[in-house]
Amino acid sequence: MIPLLFTLAAHAGGLGSRVFVVERASGSLAVYDVADHAVVGRIDGFGNLAHATMTFSPDLRWGYVATRSGQLSRVDLATLQRAGDVAVSHNSIDVAITSDGRYVATAEYDPGGVTLLDAQTLAVAHRVVGPAGPDGKPTRMTGIVDAPGGRLVFVGMEVPEVWVLDAAKPGFPVAARVPVAANPYDAMITPDGRFYVVGHLDSPVVSVVDLDHPEAGARRVSLGGPETLSVPVKLPHLASWAVAQDHVFVPLPGEARLAVLDKDSFEVEASVPLRGNPVYAVRHPSGREIWVSFSGEEDDAWVQVIDAETLEVTREVRVGRRVYHLDFTPRGAALLASANADGQLLVIDAATLQTIDVEPLASPSGIFGPWRAFQAGL
Amino acid sequence: MIPLLFTLAAHAGGLGSRVFVVERASGSLAVYDVADHAVVGRIDGFGNLAHATMTFSPDLRWGYVATRSGQLSRVDLATLQRAGDVAVSHNSIDVAITSDGRYVATAEYDPGGVTLLDAQTLAVAHRVVGPAGPDGKPTRMTGIVDAPGGRLVFVGMEVPEVWVLDAAKPGFPVAARVPVAANPYDAMITPDGRFYVVGHLDSPVVSVVDLDHPEAGARRVSLGGPETLSVPVKLPHLASWAVAQDHVFVPLPGEARLAVLDKDSFEVEASVPLRGNPVYAVRHPSGREIWVSFSGEEDDAWVQVIDAETLEVTREVRVGRRVYHLDFTPRGAALLASANADGQLLVIDAATLQTIDVEPLASPSGIFGPWRAFQAGL
Repeated sequence: MIPLLFTLAAHAGGLGSRVFVVERASGSLAVYDVADHAVVGRIDGFGNLAHATMTFSPDLRWGYVATRSGQLSRVDLATLQRAGDVAVSHNSIDVAITSDGRYVATAEYDPGGVTLLDAQTLAVAHRVVGPAGPDGKPTRMTGIVDAPGGRLVFVGMEVPEVWVLDAAKPGFPVAARVPVAANPYDAMITPDGRFYVVGHLDSPVVSVVDLDHPEAGARRVSLGGPETLSVPVKLPHLASWAVAQDHVFVPLPGEARLAVLDKDSFEVEASVPLRGNPVYAVRHPSGREIWVSFSGEEDDAWVQVIDAETLEVTREVRVGRRVYHLDFTPRGAALLASANADGQLLVIDAATLQTIDVEPLASPSGIFGPWRAFQAGL
Repeated sequence: MIPLLFTLAAHAGGLGSRVFVVERASGSLAVYDVADHAVVGRIDGFGNLAHATMTFSPDLRWGYVATRSGQLSRVDLATLQRAGDVAVSHNSIDVAITSDGRYVATAEYDPGGVTLLDAQTLAVAHRVVGPAGPDGKPTRMTGIVDAPGGRLVFVGMEVPEVWVLDAAKPGFPVAARVPVAANPYDAMITPDGRFYVVGHLDSPVVSVVDLDHPEAGARRVSLGGPETLSVPVKLPHLASWAVAQDHVFVPLPGEARLAVLDKDSFEVEASVPLRGNPVYAVRHPSGREIWVSFSGEEDDAWVQVIDAETLEVTREVRVGRRVYHLDFTPRGAALLASANADGQLLVIDAATLQTIDVEPLASPSGIFGPWRAFQAGL
């Protein structure tokens, strides 16, 4: 038994450099060790992992994945095995954990609502059901995030309201419900936990709720500047937005540029021309650079680097065909990127742009590191 | 053996919520689990832990402690045992790890210099010895931090120069040496990795080196505004500075106020009156608040909270006598504070200011959480 014991301990101890990479075709998570340059585990049985995200408990014992199959699965970070599955709905879209680590919450499409689970026992602790939409069914919920003070924030889709739930108080009272414009499809929270930003389908307008003052209502901000008002702006999922320095960087697909908003007023203040249509804008951990991926065969193998101060493209690097997701090791030494069409996970030196490792993976997509445990809103 | 196996795995998996607290009198580290509200381990044999700091490997396998006894000790985060000691000097002051996790480096007083160790094998990889000071001995080094791109930055004391070492290149070339004013005693790096700030003994002036442009030399910035020019400003250790929003917050001991500097120009832009003489200013993870501890029997049990935007004191809380160190759980839910004179570690709800737990510890001092592994410059 002794050798097994030491193997397990070594596994668990190295988890800081392990990322969980969604393999979309097989519905599995590959566990890649950035320090060892090797796949050290593979976990399956999640169901449909399209657009799945993973969140982590603050004690780094567990990861949580919500799936389009409606299954909430917990992963034991020490053994790299599934350790608990709960059927929370028929179709869940997003997962969050409260800032105190007590509750995991999923936002759901079918039936529409939000489910809070005890993070340790996985017992259902509370369920939020919003009003019915035009089809008579409870409104779908999306964009769930944790906010300071043990709150959870999410938005209804058919009945467009931002909900603020106080999960630190007995009974999980609703602290606020803020009406927003029609057809919310996704949302994000700024890293300081203050603003909740909602995107609306087929609209250049986003709704911004100041979580310090929800009673003030939502502010509408148009991302279409004068030169683009005639162009229908298609907004991507809001996880693709980046906040750095005094700016919010918003990829505008179909327009080959980043919109740059002031981080307090959310007014458009600049526009950065790019080589193609951007998909993801990701902040380097230093906050000094924004790295951008693209759609379209001409561009989707490339990543461009924007200086967050001068707002200019400073460098670009060819990563691999159809880059789906970008993340950085937390001190910013390396970029991690999934090149879906090449079936590769790549590790790139963020200073020199040299390739450090190439790992073959089956249809890699989202990349989730345990450092998310320590970042509010993730 | 099976129960032992599971005990160990649970231990290792829970390390995200474990903090290492220096017990100064006994030269030990108490391991406190913030989730379980319990001391789960105690590690000794470090030597003199006065002013000791702890840094963590990016894979979360190891912690590293440099001591005034000159011993660099490695802690196994899974077993909570010492796992390797190296006598690097007779008196070390500070420890850092490169952004790629390859090297651990200590700054030393006796003999003066910097030692780089392989983070895995603990073999000495390189040693930096500066020029001799007036006493004929190599200058003491202090203030060692990691900077982006695998660099290490530190400062000579008798021969006042900032050194930038490129630990990502073979042979560890010195990338820059920047002369600064006399008598450096400590330094810090801004969270974005750009500016290295050096304090000088008995001087209201700090030296600021832009690490993007070390060739431009050091800028001198006076922290004495017109109203305080006649007062000899005593600066604390620079780990007590906080950077949040667009400001740098500097406790001015002996003046009962915080100086607020612009984060780019380092010019003094405001002053926040406080209840007493500040010691530590610590940024809440949201960046929206600065929490301050004090010296002096009248005030040293208290912590005041400053709004980083309005620059006003908004709240205060009595924590316990002689607060030595403050830190937050990484999503900002709780404050951790050591009350040295009361022999207590306290956990305080950062939203409600209610006490969550009180843990008796022998002369508690510095508090170090594994989330430091994921923060550049720590």
